[in-house]
Amino acid sequence: MTREELSAFLDREFPQIHFGGRTYHVEEVGPLRVRLRMDYHDRHLRPGGTLSGPSMMGLADLALYAAILAHIGPVALAVTTSLNFNFLRKPEQRALIAECRLLKLGKRLAVGEVAMASEGSEEIVCHATGTYSIPERG
Amino acid sequence: MTREELSAFLDREFPQIHFGGRTYHVEEVGPLRVRLRMDYHDRHLRPGGTLSGPSMMGLADLALYAAILAHIGPVALAVTTSLNFNFLRKPEQRALIAECRLLKLGKRLAVGEVAMASEGSEEIVCHATGTYSIPERG
Amino acid sequence: MTREELSAFLDREFPQIHFGGRTYHVEEVGPLRVRLRMDYHDRHLRPGGTLSGPSMMGLADLALYAAILAHIGPVALAVTTSLNFNFLRKPEQRALIAECRLLKLGKRLAVGEVAMASEGSEEIVCHATGTYSIPERG
Amino acid sequence: MTREELSAFLDREFPQIHFGGRTYHVEEVGPLRVRLRMDYHDRHLRPGGTLSGPSMMGLADLALYAAILAHIGPVALAVTTSLNFNFLRKPEQRALIAECRLLKLGKRLAVGEVAMASEGSEEIVCHATGTYSIPERG
Repeated sequence: MTREELSAFLDREFPQIHFGGRTYHVEEVGPLRVRLRMDYHDRHLRPGGTLSGPSMMGLADLALYAAILAHIGPVALAVTTSLNFNFLRKPEQRALIAECRLLKLGKRLAVGEVAMASEGSEEIVCHATGTYSIPERG
Repeated sequence: MTREELSAFLDREFPQIHFGGRTYHVEEVGPLRVRLRMDYHDRHLRPGGTLSGPSMMGLADLALYAAILAHIGPVALAVTTSLNFNFLRKPEQRALIAECRLLKLGKRLAVGEVAMASEGSEEIVCHATGTYSIPERG
Repeated sequence: MTREELSAFLDREFPQIHFGGRTYHVEEVGPLRVRLRMDYHDRHLRPGGTLSGPSMMGLADLALYAAILAHIGPVALAVTTSLNFNFLRKPEQRALIAECRLLKLGKRLAVGEVAMASEGSEEIVCHATGTYSIPERG
Repeated sequence: MTREELSAFLDREFPQIHFGGRTYHVEEVGPLRVRLRMDYHDRHLRPGGTLSGPSMMGLADLALYAAILAHIGPVALAVTTSLNFNFLRKPEQRALIAECRLLKLGKRLAVGEVAMASEGSEEIVCHATGTYSIPERG
């Protein structure tokens, strides 16, 4: 799937990720990787203006899901089986960029990692790995 | 902290967890444990009426945070350093109950686990473990 | 499988876990759970007499594997797909007891947790969760 | 610390990692990273000649520990607080190379990731992330 096809699919099938205003954007799709952007937005914040843990976890899950979808197509729905997060630094008060890379894309399981950094920064604020179960295709 | 004190503290310091309507409730506080409830609500859903992964991850993070807070008091703010999730089954279309237990409450680190099940069910739908850094108290 | 059948199977198929002397023992097999014991032994130690991290990780992996095997039988070989560990306290200078509980035993994936404590103690020194892929049975 | 200093320190302080024959080698030390090599050796094997899970977990723990040590020096002893592993593919019947990168080196916590591949291959067989607590230095 191209970036446009992937975006259109997510919009159509997961409208609720845009609940409260569109903040997630697919920026790039490449071989075994995608880049997503999460806008800095009220609903992702904790007091003091920092991005909340759950908003970063949601971004990681979406990035991994999008990366798998981009490579196996919109037919089969992958299901998250496990996710691991390390929170490294306080994010800046701006958009967050998620670079996602698939480490394995098997017939039954896909595994990937996501590194998140504030836009324009190299410092990773949150690192995630996740495993997804891919349903059998009839 | 009692259940009432803990609820009041969370309401005051983290009003944004109630953004879109109050869905999180502290149900019980005991020695090294708390129980939280997340109402079944539109903003936690994925298509088909199932609870989203991020909503369960947010519940686990809140439960661990609340358990630590209930035991060290509202002075020091714990910071999430890592979280691990296993998603085991599709949750039912009703409230989710999170049973949280602290496995360690040290001076610098607290570690706990959370088992989440649909209200009235014994089957765990999501299991989480988390580590929190506790700032030095001057 | 009973405790005796399980022990005999592990001895026969995984003789190398006893390399350097038998230190692992299946102590009990129950519904969705097993208890294993790891003797305090030179080859599991770090300087100062503490049990090494890898020796505890090996015990957790064996306990989870044994629990799955006890319930699905010796035909299908489960494969570890992910493991997560939290190290909570320094273990005592004696045997380590691993209590393993399966949280899910599906057709394709099994998930379980392991709590390890020094023999005679209630304090958890290491907590693990693991996911195993179960091959299709023809 | 240089590669030679790091190797000498590990040899002196952790002789038991060489129990049964030297199989671990520090190959390279760079800014926030190290590369280790684990020889293919009987004591790391499972039936069929595949490298065991625990041997890969021990390699990851050692690589992370060595990377931290190389950067903070041999004074303070870091303690593993959590480790997460994803097992992606069966390793080949040869040496395993572990590329370790520190994602954060704070005053109290260090976090890093390790990608392991069979020597001469690009395919990651095991991916790990770990968190280490760094004692206060008086």
